[in-house]
Amino acid sequence: MGYFRESIEKAKPYEPGIQPAAAGVVKLNTNENPYPPSPEVIKAIAGISAEQLRRYPDPMGGAFRRAAADLNGIEPEWIMCCNGGDDLLRMAFSAFCDKKRACAYPVPTYSLYPVLAKVQNCRAIEVPFDDEYNLPAKLAKTGAALTIVCNPNAPSGTFIAAGELASLADELKGVLLVDEAYVDFAQTDCAGLVRDFDNVVVLRSMSKGYSLAGLRFGYAIARPEMIAGLMKVKDSYNVDAIAIAAATAAIRDQNHFRTNVNKVRAERGRLSEELGKLGFDVGESCANFVLAKCRNCKAKDVYDKLTRRNIYVRFFDKPGLDDKLRITVGTKEQDDKLLDALKEILS
Amino acid sequence: MGYFRESIEKAKPYEPGIQPAAAGVVKLNTNENPYPPSPEVIKAIAGISAEQLRRYPDPMGGAFRRAAADLNGIEPEWIMCCNGGDDLLRMAFSAFCDKKRACAYPVPTYSLYPVLAKVQNCRAIEVPFDDEYNLPAKLAKTGAALTIVCNPNAPSGTFIAAGELASLADELKGVLLVDEAYVDFAQTDCAGLVRDFDNVVVLRSMSKGYSLAGLRFGYAIARPEMIAGLMKVKDSYNVDAIAIAAATAAIRDQNHFRTNVNKVRAERGRLSEELGKLGFDVGESCANFVLAKCRNCKAKDVYDKLTRRNIYVRFFDKPGLDDKLRITVGTKEQDDKLLDALKEILS
Repeated sequence: MGYFRESIEKAKPYEPGIQPAAAGVVKLNTNENPYPPSPEVIKAIAGISAEQLRRYPDPMGGAFRRAAADLNGIEPEWIMCCNGGDDLLRMAFSAFCDKKRACAYPVPTYSLYPVLAKVQNCRAIEVPFDDEYNLPAKLAKTGAALTIVCNPNAPSGTFIAAGELASLADELKGVLLVDEAYVDFAQTDCAGLVRDFDNVVVLRSMSKGYSLAGLRFGYAIARPEMIAGLMKVKDSYNVDAIAIAAATAAIRDQNHFRTNVNKVRAERGRLSEELGKLGFDVGESCANFVLAKCRNCKAKDVYDKLTRRNIYVRFFDKPGLDDKLRITVGTKEQDDKLLDALKEILS
Repeated sequence: MGYFRESIEKAKPYEPGIQPAAAGVVKLNTNENPYPPSPEVIKAIAGISAEQLRRYPDPMGGAFRRAAADLNGIEPEWIMCCNGGDDLLRMAFSAFCDKKRACAYPVPTYSLYPVLAKVQNCRAIEVPFDDEYNLPAKLAKTGAALTIVCNPNAPSGTFIAAGELASLADELKGVLLVDEAYVDFAQTDCAGLVRDFDNVVVLRSMSKGYSLAGLRFGYAIARPEMIAGLMKVKDSYNVDAIAIAAATAAIRDQNHFRTNVNKVRAERGRLSEELGKLGFDVGESCANFVLAKCRNCKAKDVYDKLTRRNIYVRFFDKPGLDDKLRITVGTKEQDDKLLDALKEILS
């Protein structure tokens, strides 16, 4: 007997995007928001007292729960706070999946799902998207205990309408988790599904739209019975006192949030257009990144040359993705540096 | 098929101690340090920039890793940061246990272990301590993939010497996790075991000795190969940017830490003595709480009467514990309020 379970021995850890420490880097590789979080967040953090640190935090993050419930027009019992969206994904695998209870998701998508499946030792049924990233009809027929749809999808940025996901939720016998980590940059969302379906869990993140990737805060939206079940696999105090205060301040400042998100959306349009002029095919994105296909270049080659110039984007060495670059929408200045470098590299 | 795995359906969530929001409460129920954390922590938090929040944190918490390695006289590769000690416990169950790979621990002990076993769907082999909380010889013979010894033990406060745990580690075929959440209040620790045994993982917490329960920060000490394996089940960004900065500031301020810990130790002696005078049997504690046995009273009754006076201690309705109260060592003022109330209740 080895010390580790066999599936852990065999598992490869998830590889997060590079986090270069150097200054002067143009960092468009991990989908961070280029604009700072609300000044209210900084105030909330500066106001943390020694007493709040000394004592255990509220296990439910009540203040955030109420603020998120207000925003979504539901009761706090429909919300659960998480240590980043990944914490909820981990909980979902733990609550729903095992050796006999599979997970399913359309691919290509967020590369953490298969890693979590391996850790939980459950089968991962990967159903390919078509070229236009439509919801695969087969996804309803897998018999999986947990079906995940990343929406908007990463790395494609494509969006599946709530009506289609409603049909999927209706057809599924297991749970449908809609990973809305990037939904703040889309025109609409699918949170309304939880009213009609007791098997739907919606994941939200404060990392992207609220510029708080450094904080690790996300939340689940689902019916109270579903939330109560997920609570059983939650670490008792999964979110800390400072994070609760900061995330609450952020979600309450909807003006700041909307302003930032609209800036990212506008710049996304401009970046897509400019990339098009340089010879990339760029599909319409509903997220804060674009997936750019090299028409007359090798994606890996361009990626390497950009990295050497301290411009970081993301390249996935996988079928269907190895001719593309995923580029986070930055500030106009950052994107111009990228576009200038691409002009040089491609000339 | 239900939405949840069967073992989750059946599981009861862990019940953390009550966290009363009211002011004026004497809170001696969840083993928080009664003294504030280092002023350096407050400074570090106030110095957090919008840029640190906007970007993902260092996935390894490098700054804390280096500081904890320095303190323990080892290299950073021997350290892993965790979102509280509970995060490491959860990882250990995920990495080592399953339906065929049991866990084992002496009882009574920290009541989270059986909850995590249930979640991971592994057998929990509970080996009773004798009346003096000696290490049970049988613990070496269970065949468990994961053996946990809480040391100092909660709720007894008793300590098992490193030599005895070395013999246990040597005899075990699986992993020995030494939960040192309370070790800061003991005279010595067992971290040295990781030099000699590749199957030992030591858990440390910043919640108690460093007065940072609100922060959720702990760490693992183990050989680099063991740390690398545990990393596979770690959330990519399990500790946030603020928590890394705050915990690093705390662990670097050893003067503040030692002063606080010594105050708690001194007050622990006084509290034990005064409880003895009131008719409680109080064993010697190496933690920041004492376990007080009612000689001529009913523990549950005393607990209820204290709660009604807004004085919170912990009562466990379990065999071997239902005649005792676990009382966190508070400030002299808090403990005097408790002692005065006990005098009234018992008279």
